[in-house]
Amino acid sequence: MLKEYARPEDGLDKERRKTETKRLQEKLTAQQIQLKDKKLPVIVLVEGWAAAGKGGLINDLISELDPRFSSVFSADSALRDADRYPFLYPFFKAIPEEGKLLFMDSGWMEAAVKSRLGGKLGKKDYARLLRSVNRFERQLRDNGYLLLKLFVNISREEQAKRLKELRSEEDTRWRVSAYDLGQNEDYSAFRKAYDDFMAETGEITPWHILDGSQKNHLKYDALRLLTELIDAGAAAGKQHGAAFEEDFPLLEMPRLSEVDLSVKLEKDEYKEELKALQKRLSRLHNVIYRKKIPVVICYEGWDAAGKGGNIRRLAYPLDPRGFDVYPIASPEPHELARHYLWRFWTRLPRSGHFAIFDRTWYGRVMVERIEGFCREEDWQRAYNEINEFEEELHDWGAVVLKFWIHIDRETQLQRFENRQNTPEKQWKITEEDWRNREKWPQYEEAVSEMLDKTSTTYAPWHIIESNDKLYARIKVLRIVADALEEAIDRN
Amino acid sequence: MLKEYARPEDGLDKERRKTETKRLQEKLTAQQIQLKDKKLPVIVLVEGWAAAGKGGLINDLISELDPRFSSVFSADSALRDADRYPFLYPFFKAIPEEGKLLFMDSGWMEAAVKSRLGGKLGKKDYARLLRSVNRFERQLRDNGYLLLKLFVNISREEQAKRLKELRSEEDTRWRVSAYDLGQNEDYSAFRKAYDDFMAETGEITPWHILDGSQKNHLKYDALRLLTELIDAGAAAGKQHGAAFEEDFPLLEMPRLSEVDLSVKLEKDEYKEELKALQKRLSRLHNVIYRKKIPVVICYEGWDAAGKGGNIRRLAYPLDPRGFDVYPIASPEPHELARHYLWRFWTRLPRSGHFAIFDRTWYGRVMVERIEGFCREEDWQRAYNEINEFEEELHDWGAVVLKFWIHIDRETQLQRFENRQNTPEKQWKITEEDWRNREKWPQYEEAVSEMLDKTSTTYAPWHIIESNDKLYARIKVLRIVADALEEAIDRN
Repeated sequence: MLKEYARPEDGLDKERRKTETKRLQEKLTAQQIQLKDKKLPVIVLVEGWAAAGKGGLINDLISELDPRFSSVFSADSALRDADRYPFLYPFFKAIPEEGKLLFMDSGWMEAAVKSRLGGKLGKKDYARLLRSVNRFERQLRDNGYLLLKLFVNISREEQAKRLKELRSEEDTRWRVSAYDLGQNEDYSAFRKAYDDFMAETGEITPWHILDGSQKNHLKYDALRLLTELIDAGAAAGKQHGAAFEEDFPLLEMPRLSEVDLSVKLEKDEYKEELKALQKRLSRLHNVIYRKKIPVVICYEGWDAAGKGGNIRRLAYPLDPRGFDVYPIASPEPHELARHYLWRFWTRLPRSGHFAIFDRTWYGRVMVERIEGFCREEDWQRAYNEINEFEEELHDWGAVVLKFWIHIDRETQLQRFENRQNTPEKQWKITEEDWRNREKWPQYEEAVSEMLDKTSTTYAPWHIIESNDKLYARIKVLRIVADALEEAIDRN
Repeated sequence: MLKEYARPEDGLDKERRKTETKRLQEKLTAQQIQLKDKKLPVIVLVEGWAAAGKGGLINDLISELDPRFSSVFSADSALRDADRYPFLYPFFKAIPEEGKLLFMDSGWMEAAVKSRLGGKLGKKDYARLLRSVNRFERQLRDNGYLLLKLFVNISREEQAKRLKELRSEEDTRWRVSAYDLGQNEDYSAFRKAYDDFMAETGEITPWHILDGSQKNHLKYDALRLLTELIDAGAAAGKQHGAAFEEDFPLLEMPRLSEVDLSVKLEKDEYKEELKALQKRLSRLHNVIYRKKIPVVICYEGWDAAGKGGNIRRLAYPLDPRGFDVYPIASPEPHELARHYLWRFWTRLPRSGHFAIFDRTWYGRVMVERIEGFCREEDWQRAYNEINEFEEELHDWGAVVLKFWIHIDRETQLQRFENRQNTPEKQWKITEEDWRNREKWPQYEEAVSEMLDKTSTTYAPWHIIESNDKLYARIKVLRIVADALEEAIDRN
């Protein structure tokens, strides 16, 4: 606890500490190569009191590192606009590529404590936030990230002295915010909040309290912890956490083979319904925008199932200023080098906007599983990680809808052949589509498992019968409109 | 001119227009494949009066397109935070990849007119802005972009009617901003401003005025223009504009062979100067931050010249919340698919921040030139394009400094061998480094030409003698500190 904290004596005299610090600094420099070789990403989270010396410590740590392999996260700028996104968004967005170090000049602890003490969060919301943080740290660990969490401690008197010093000069005065002064004013309330937070988030990754009153101690202690962490990480190699199952509120899903694909809609009826639904969606989008409700819509389905045309009908009535369609192809190198959910976290809509994903994070448990692009424990673990991700979206207030656009194998064959035989459609069909078609049974198994394990009450899967594309479109539009209406009523 | 504008009769009756519109829509759908095959990027800029139907038109145009190949730019959200960046920043950031279409729901015209009429720009600043726009459009054209510029026109009465309608319902009221109402109020002032803008930016890419009073006319006209543009573009193939030379204020640079590389600094003197300079830089960074002056620092140099160590000494005294170091390697696929300056535009610092580039956009006229990664006209044209880019930075108020870290060939050999023979340094040396070394004479020629053609008064090159790294560091830090001081005095 911060109140009782006293830096343990390490018996080093000044000269000895200097030599040791230098040695550790050199060691850290050399460790960069190990990180690169072993493809390990490292996050150093530096939390602590205002004016405790977090920025200076980070500068000390990176001063000898190769700038190609390290970067600094600054909460100040990263949290701008944060209230339009889920709590974890700015932090997930910042996670480094493998082989690189990220130093964070305060992060999720300060953000949490700030919200709590600022009275922005009720007890229940705060508990939820702690859960988010713990899940985030576990996901980082399970996906091979090394995380070091430091808290730089100074006394109330020391802080008061430093803040006064900063305020005494024009060039440094702007650095002291009202928040910083409030911290010193309510020092004991903050100390309790910090203590609570550390107690509640110390299980997966431990917290280390460091003494900020002496710069040389601080640097030495941080270097020692960081080099130890990297040593241990390099020895153990990149981690791939084992799969496990948390208890999510799952919906019962029908067997794919039991889905009645004969349902269809006449052209006239389709036209009429389409027009009415699009009018309704257009009206609803206005309210969604005004009420700042985020909407996340996910499309998955067989090749040639009609995802593209379906998406176009859905997007048509929406205000183009308020939605984005994200086609998801294989990840680019900088995406592959991070947690697999990173490229989706970074594409989340601002509140009040729609994000429509044409294929999604479920690639992890379909193509990546079947093609062996990740290890078995990785995709096995993904069901849970994805449920957690979607719960974050739900807790943020998002409407989350997931569509499996479904056809049978014969229909796919007809559509493939039609594409092959129609010159202006040939570009839509590739060798890979034919190869994937061969793997229909494997996909069917993967899809069934996915539907069973990830259809939650707050982010349900809808199986959309799409042998008749007209029927499929109307069904999707109706589900979306109903869900939006319901969300509007709740808000 | 808008005042006299009347839609030309096209002699189509209602039925015929409907059929023609459908035909054009299908044509556009088919043209997507041509764009993909010919690697052509397309920008459709839709400007016009508030409530003229820009958003609806864009929705009509994209409704049948594959969402994988098209996206929408919305000025509303893209211009948030724009005052911390150069005028062109949000637009350059938005340019599409090759093979894709970007539809812009207003862009640089509205932004320019808004600033002008809002009284935010003096006459001189506005003239500069027009120059920026014209250069931007020329750079797009010269780098293979197809650009269609539309202005959707409605009368004052029609606009008043539509705004009233929107305001009459709760769900659409928020769409009408004070700015929109002001537009209707000062309709003739806006009309003049639009006319002026079109007159002054119509030379490189023509403007097309469209009649917004009838939705079906609007859609048909826009489709006709867009399909014609793509036809012509596909027939001509991707453009690579010829090189040309504008008149920039160039500095006389010394021959590389004449640089005296024997200069050096004793360790003691170095330590003392380093300490003093870092203290000075730390103080200056505070002022830079407070005065919101952007700083862009570019490092280029021979392999093993000592760029990394130099950058670390410069970054050390800076506040980590206020700078980023960008190591520049070969472009990723999504970067390669755009204008080569895109990945630098998108990394510009916010005003008050530093961006330090470890290698830069000058790769275009060095490695890309020598390895044949671009055509001759591309790198020949780049000198001018780069001077323009840097002038944008200067006009924005940025301090722009460029360092060529210089060593001789013997020194490089020693350092290479030293790396090869020191186990913990071996990762720093690759086969490619040795291959590049073989091309020293070609690089020397390219570097000389670069220095001669791009050292402008507002973004000068500094040759840094780095056979002695200590000397090089002190020289860079002093140049930076002096330049910051000067900028602070001016602001």
